[in-house]
Amino acid sequence: MEQKPTIEVVLAPGLYKSKLTKEPFNVVIVDIFRATTSICGALDYGIKAIIPVKRIRHARFMKRLGYIVAAERNGHKVRFAHIGNSATAFFKPEFKGKEIVYSTTNGTKAIKRADKAKKIIIGSFINLGAVAKWLADDNKNVVIFCAGWKNKVNMEDSLFAGALSEILMSEYGFVTDDDSTTMSIDQWRKAKENIIEYIEQSSHRRRLRNLVDEELLKYTFSIDISQVVPVVKGYKVVAE
Amino acid sequence: MEQKPTIEVVLAPGLYKSKLTKEPFNVVIVDIFRATTSICGALDYGIKAIIPVKRIRHARFMKRLGYIVAAERNGHKVRFAHIGNSATAFFKPEFKGKEIVYSTTNGTKAIKRADKAKKIIIGSFINLGAVAKWLADDNKNVVIFCAGWKNKVNMEDSLFAGALSEILMSEYGFVTDDDSTTMSIDQWRKAKENIIEYIEQSSHRRRLRNLVDEELLKYTFSIDISQVVPVVKGYKVVAE
Repeated sequence: MEQKPTIEVVLAPGLYKSKLTKEPFNVVIVDIFRATTSICGALDYGIKAIIPVKRIRHARFMKRLGYIVAAERNGHKVRFAHIGNSATAFFKPEFKGKEIVYSTTNGTKAIKRADKAKKIIIGSFINLGAVAKWLADDNKNVVIFCAGWKNKVNMEDSLFAGALSEILMSEYGFVTDDDSTTMSIDQWRKAKENIIEYIEQSSHRRRLRNLVDEELLKYTFSIDISQVVPVVKGYKVVAE
Repeated sequence: MEQKPTIEVVLAPGLYKSKLTKEPFNVVIVDIFRATTSICGALDYGIKAIIPVKRIRHARFMKRLGYIVAAERNGHKVRFAHIGNSATAFFKPEFKGKEIVYSTTNGTKAIKRADKAKKIIIGSFINLGAVAKWLADDNKNVVIFCAGWKNKVNMEDSLFAGALSEILMSEYGFVTDDDSTTMSIDQWRKAKENIIEYIEQSSHRRRLRNLVDEELLKYTFSIDISQVVPVVKGYKVVAE
């Protein structure tokens, strides 16, 4: 009998090492506000590659080398950067075909921690179905790695984990015996009828209330508007 | 205006350091299968104190000193121990008024990690209401610390966190802006109508299926059969 691929959800970086998934596995990085949504949006728009960097000073250094730089702190574009970190900031015709440096603390940390992954891909609500299909086609075990916020569990990343797990199980026959996965699916089923209203409960959303305008929030939860699947290749993230 | 005490749920030991609760706070340790349920049951029955130890060899050493020892591995009593780790194993008249050494890896680890806590108390479904009332009377911020299993999130500890949070918020006016707390409450609301059936989904429950008999499972989820509130004092846990 053929073994079915498994799903495990890692709810915050501090739990990645304790995962029990057997190799080989692929990792899906999730940081809905904002890194992974922005990376998916940017690559979908036609940006050639995103180069995630953890520190603002690395981003500044890369600017001197001639790169376009997206960087913000506390929701505001840092002075030297060309744009902030929102997905919609990347939608400029002159950026098409370019490589853009993207400053993200949680996202970069998660990508670096995701060791032993066969491949690391980037998930968001805008490419939810495409990510599920890619994982099913590749037919390996899956670790859904929520970047969280300051090593705390957050609701929007967990909800995405639930949404992706539900599709992988119901449409593609993946299995799980991981409690975090079951809990995320339950949470998603409760939330999905009105995801934006639900996310209003979240501390992260409250934190971002003055930073994310309604248009960007709507974009973030626009399920399946893109078929892009961003894959980490060395220090770059590119559309496969 | 008086500030209301806050709640934060730590879903596994690897997330304790990242908590954001302001001091002073109390910590509630949760390890439903089995340590905290057994400790509450034992103290309720009249055991004078429980001494949690992490390693089997420490338990063996304590036995040589004359202590009664409760210890098991993989659900079976270890040979030298007097009893296994189930709550019901403590219900022997000759144990009343005695101090008993209890071997528990996850539980001991959580108690040791819970630094900066004003007091550390022990929670389980059997003393849910008493724990809530104690925390409300003490009127400090609360961190609900799920011991989990091998630094993974598990369902039964999260459900308890949700149950306790719900009471603290609805009956005693505690507040939260922590996503893990909100998620645990949602999970609890979904589960509480038929908690035992719900827990059957859990990997931990599946793992324990051959180890926990129906009687012990029913005991574990017998809400509010005890008014005991176990408090950590030095190396001992005693009823306050």
